[in-house]
Amino acid sequence: MPDAAPATPVGSLSEEAVLAAILECLGPSDSLVGPGDDAAVLQLADARVVVTTDTLIHGPDFRLAWSSGRDLGAKAAAVNLADVAAMGARPVALFVALAMPPETTIGFVRELATGLREACDELAPGCRVAGGDLTSSDTLTIAVTAIGEMEPGHSPVLRSGARPGDILAICGEVGLAAAGLDILFERFRDEDGQAVAVDAGILTAPERTAVAGQLRPRPPIGSGAAAARAGATAMMDVSDGLVRDARRLARASGVTLDIARLALGPDSDRALRGGEDHALLATFPANTILPAGFRAIGSVGAAGPDPLTVDGLPERSAGGWDPYRDWDGAGG
Amino acid sequence: MPDAAPATPVGSLSEEAVLAAILECLGPSDSLVGPGDDAAVLQLADARVVVTTDTLIHGPDFRLAWSSGRDLGAKAAAVNLADVAAMGARPVALFVALAMPPETTIGFVRELATGLREACDELAPGCRVAGGDLTSSDTLTIAVTAIGEMEPGHSPVLRSGARPGDILAICGEVGLAAAGLDILFERFRDEDGQAVAVDAGILTAPERTAVAGQLRPRPPIGSGAAAARAGATAMMDVSDGLVRDARRLARASGVTLDIARLALGPDSDRALRGGEDHALLATFPANTILPAGFRAIGSVGAAGPDPLTVDGLPERSAGGWDPYRDWDGAGG
Repeated sequence: MPDAAPATPVGSLSEEAVLAAILECLGPSDSLVGPGDDAAVLQLADARVVVTTDTLIHGPDFRLAWSSGRDLGAKAAAVNLADVAAMGARPVALFVALAMPPETTIGFVRELATGLREACDELAPGCRVAGGDLTSSDTLTIAVTAIGEMEPGHSPVLRSGARPGDILAICGEVGLAAAGLDILFERFRDEDGQAVAVDAGILTAPERTAVAGQLRPRPPIGSGAAAARAGATAMMDVSDGLVRDARRLARASGVTLDIARLALGPDSDRALRGGEDHALLATFPANTILPAGFRAIGSVGAAGPDPLTVDGLPERSAGGWDPYRDWDGAGG
Repeated sequence: MPDAAPATPVGSLSEEAVLAAILECLGPSDSLVGPGDDAAVLQLADARVVVTTDTLIHGPDFRLAWSSGRDLGAKAAAVNLADVAAMGARPVALFVALAMPPETTIGFVRELATGLREACDELAPGCRVAGGDLTSSDTLTIAVTAIGEMEPGHSPVLRSGARPGDILAICGEVGLAAAGLDILFERFRDEDGQAVAVDAGILTAPERTAVAGQLRPRPPIGSGAAAARAGATAMMDVSDGLVRDARRLARASGVTLDIARLALGPDSDRALRGGEDHALLATFPANTILPAGFRAIGSVGAAGPDPLTVDGLPERSAGGWDPYRDWDGAGG
């Protein structure tokens, strides 16, 4: 059967034909049992399995005018890989539940599958899509579950393990994705607020980098297991903004986290509040030689009236993004 | 904080408040690391993990006029548990990505979580929801990933292992859910074809059973591992109808399956074509004493011109349900 033309809507193809096109873009999986049976079976390093799930929804999570299929596939992979990495684990497979309006083109679906594969190859070599599910929906929805393995002999790195005296450190971008989102909202919407296609030609190089950071984040996945090996006491990925997520880590650990504003660079406000970079925030015992890519941004103190301080002063802003409070219902 | 009133829309609550309500209904999880960290960590019986994902979407997969939150939670669990069972594995945990319109009530969300827990308790004791994700969406979407473990020393039972001379057997209902769907379509829609609430009082007892089989299927989850222990050569769950799924098993195994119509009971047409019961279809070596609940319905022969025959005659109908071809776009 020849491949369907890129503009062919999936609603005019059978589920089997759509699946075949996706599998072709994903390439082979080395699961014990891969796509095509009732479930996949994966061989892990030991008998502990790390599991996380995160979904991208058309509307609150992305605009199709801004994100290509490849961007979306890559982002859906990256945000889940980061959650596995944040446990100190190594991602081994992704499972993708894809729900699409019938008018979605097969070309878009192929791009999406390609983006999933590219992000795995780039960020977590050896990890592949090993299964999934296809359904129709009025709302394009990409629900990904990531599976990871622990290095034998190492324990998962929880949010709750930070101790007074530890160093607070981060690996990866903070604020870049938020800067990119600001550019998209300010410069690539029409008079009615609807998203319009990004014209990279009118952007400076740093602006293009920021937009790419929003549409296709590249969290430092391999640094999660490296942090576990270096003795990280607590870790999480920063998905909802540093203020919001650092506060969660502080509360889970029963400590105060103090961030040194100077360590966040010139745009420290955006670094504190912007989310979606999926940097790894971790604590390490004092005197630890930080693993490559981690930089100290503060310290861990005893529990006090405020779980989070910046330069010693209470930080009480909400920060970040809450899909229930903050989404205005716009699509595009 | 007191619980929000059942009619409170989730859009007026924070993500944390919605999550807290869900966790309360789910009860405790015995994961090594449970909800609240970046990912869950589960202890398995050995280093192989079984993973499957299946999604319920408002519109193609359910009508809210017919399904309660508890029905939907239970069904979303059951269809995924069945895929794990069909590998001969034991389900250990579910992960639930829930995407909801902001007007969804917290009462509905609590019901849904309760249905998930009830189905686990009833069908797969020891299995619990161990993590998930909450997002806003215009379309109510329940994407579940199920995690299972193999019994040490046993191999996964694939679709591809049936051999000529094997017995073809089934465990669980076939056709019941389709009968229920027919009742819903014929008797609980208004003049415009919109779904209206089910009035159980106008149904006979068998009709009520059929409707329950559609809205809240109860596949025989424990029988999957039992079939593996009994030496099943191939297995799958019947989600898209016996004709469609038996043909898939026959093709994967390179054999012909012959079904004896008489073994399907009085409503054999519906048993052949109806889906969504999630019975376990398996093949066993000749002379196997079938595990409890399995009944012989046919035999396995050498590959021939048609992968599936009924009483020796070629069966070429499509059967079953294809969301891309068959959904008419109706909601309700």
